[in-house]
Amino acid sequence: MGILEEIIEGPNYGEIERQIAKFMEDFLARTGARGYVIGLSGGVDSTAAAYLAVRAVGPERVNALLLPDREATPSEDLEDARWVAEKLGISYTLVEINDIYESFLRSMPFRQLENKVANGNLKVRIRMCMLYYYANSRNCLVIGTSDRSEILIGYYTKWGDGASDLIPLGGLFKTQVRKLAEHMGVPKRIAYKPSSPRLWKGHMAEEELGASYEVIDQVLYCLFDKGYDLEETAKATGFSLETVKKIYEMYLRSSHKRSLPPAPELRW
Amino acid sequence: MGILEEIIEGPNYGEIERQIAKFMEDFLARTGARGYVIGLSGGVDSTAAAYLAVRAVGPERVNALLLPDREATPSEDLEDARWVAEKLGISYTLVEINDIYESFLRSMPFRQLENKVANGNLKVRIRMCMLYYYANSRNCLVIGTSDRSEILIGYYTKWGDGASDLIPLGGLFKTQVRKLAEHMGVPKRIAYKPSSPRLWKGHMAEEELGASYEVIDQVLYCLFDKGYDLEETAKATGFSLETVKKIYEMYLRSSHKRSLPPAPELRW
Repeated sequence: MGILEEIIEGPNYGEIERQIAKFMEDFLARTGARGYVIGLSGGVDSTAAAYLAVRAVGPERVNALLLPDREATPSEDLEDARWVAEKLGISYTLVEINDIYESFLRSMPFRQLENKVANGNLKVRIRMCMLYYYANSRNCLVIGTSDRSEILIGYYTKWGDGASDLIPLGGLFKTQVRKLAEHMGVPKRIAYKPSSPRLWKGHMAEEELGASYEVIDQVLYCLFDKGYDLEETAKATGFSLETVKKIYEMYLRSSHKRSLPPAPELRW
Repeated sequence: MGILEEIIEGPNYGEIERQIAKFMEDFLARTGARGYVIGLSGGVDSTAAAYLAVRAVGPERVNALLLPDREATPSEDLEDARWVAEKLGISYTLVEINDIYESFLRSMPFRQLENKVANGNLKVRIRMCMLYYYANSRNCLVIGTSDRSEILIGYYTKWGDGASDLIPLGGLFKTQVRKLAEHMGVPKRIAYKPSSPRLWKGHMAEEELGASYEVIDQVLYCLFDKGYDLEETAKATGFSLETVKKIYEMYLRSSHKRSLPPAPELRW
C-alpha cells in the first residue's frame, strides 16, 4: 500500500465520524452552552464540520453564518454554503463582510491597500469577530474549521480562523477530511473542491503553498506519524529532500501559531 | 510580613525589569521581526509593557496605537496614553474605533444593542484586528498587556486582548505590575489608576469582579504559589471561604481561555 493510500484509506470513516460527533456532543454538554455557530464557506472543511455538528447535537442547535467577500468569494462558494445549510436544515444568516472591511480601511491611516496578506488576514479576523459576537450573544460555541494539515503547516490566520472554541477536524489531514466528507454524503463538488482561503480573488491554497495537499499530507504523515527524519521522509515518499524540507520549514516557522503567547519566566 | 506585603514587596523590581526587558529583546531578535506594536489604553498594564518594550529594544522599534472608544474611554485615559507615548518618544497613531464598531452593528442582523458583554468584547476584538493589521503590514509583533491576575481569573476577551504574540507581564500579579510601574517612573496617577477594561461607560473591573485586586492577588498567590487548598487560603488570608471559592471558580470557568481550542483524539 502506498503512503497516500495508507493515509486516505487507513481510517474507518464511520468510526471517525462517530468519535468526532461524540466529542462535539460531550463538549457542548460539558460547557453548558446552548449550541454551536459555524462560518460556512462552501469549502470542504466547514462543510464537514457542519455535518458533524448536526450529527452530534441536531440541526436546531447548530447555527451558520455565511460571510462572503464581494471581492474574493466565488458565487459557487456562496451557493454551496447555502446548499449545505439548507440540506442540513440549520438556520443561517448571510452577512457580506465588505462594509466592515471598508470601514476598517477608512479608519486606519496605516492601511496598505496593496498588501494582500494584511488585508486578507483582516477579512478573516472580521469573520471571527462576527462569529464570536453571535456566540457571545446567543450562548453558543464557535466551531473552528481548520484541519490537521493546515494546523501543522500554519496555513491559517492567527487569531482569525485559528480562533475558535474547538477544532473537530484537528486530527485529520486534508485528504482525510475530503474522504470523510464524501463518506458523510457531501457532494463531490464540495468534498474535492480545490482548497482556498479566498483571501483575494483567484487565491488558491496549493498555488500559494507550492505543493498539493497530497504531497503535504504524505510528508507530514511520515514526519509526525511515522517518526521519520527528513531523509527517510524523502526516500519513503519519493519527493525531493528540498520539498520535504520546505514543508518542514512551514511547520517550524508556524510554531508560534500552535501555542499560546509566551510570558517570561521570572525569578526573584 | 503579611501576605499582601509578601506579594508586593517580595520581588526585586530592578531585577524583574531587567529580566522582562531581556526576554523582549531576545524574543524580537529570535523572530526577526522589525519591532513591536502595542495598544496603549492609559492603564497601568499597557503603560508598564510599553516602558519595558522601550527599555528592551529602544523607542524607534516600538509603535503604539491609541484606540479609544468615544462612548467608553474617559478623556483622562486618552490623555494618559498620549502622555506615555510622548514621554517614551515612541511613534503613535490615534484611531477611534467607533466607525468600525457601528459598521459591524449595521452589518449584523443578529446585533443586540443592549448586550453589554457581546458589544464590549467586539470592541476589544476590533482593537486586536487593528493591532494585527499594523503588525502584519509593518513586520511587527503585537505586545499582549494582560497580567497574571487577569490571566488566572480569565478577565480578558478571548481572541481580543488575550490575542497577542507575547505577554511580558504574564508572570506578575496586578498589584506587582503597579509596583513595577512605579519603580520604572510611571506617574502614580497611572500606576495606581483603578483598573478597568472600559467595555462600557463607567465599567470598573473591581466592581464587575466583586473583589479588589488586593484580595484577588492574595487568594491566587496562596492557591498557585503557596499551593494551599481553599480552606488554607481562607485561613491564611483572613477572607471568607466563599470569597476564596468565588475566585477559584473564576479560575476554573476560564480554563478554556488559557489553552488552545481542543481537537478530539481519534483512534482507528
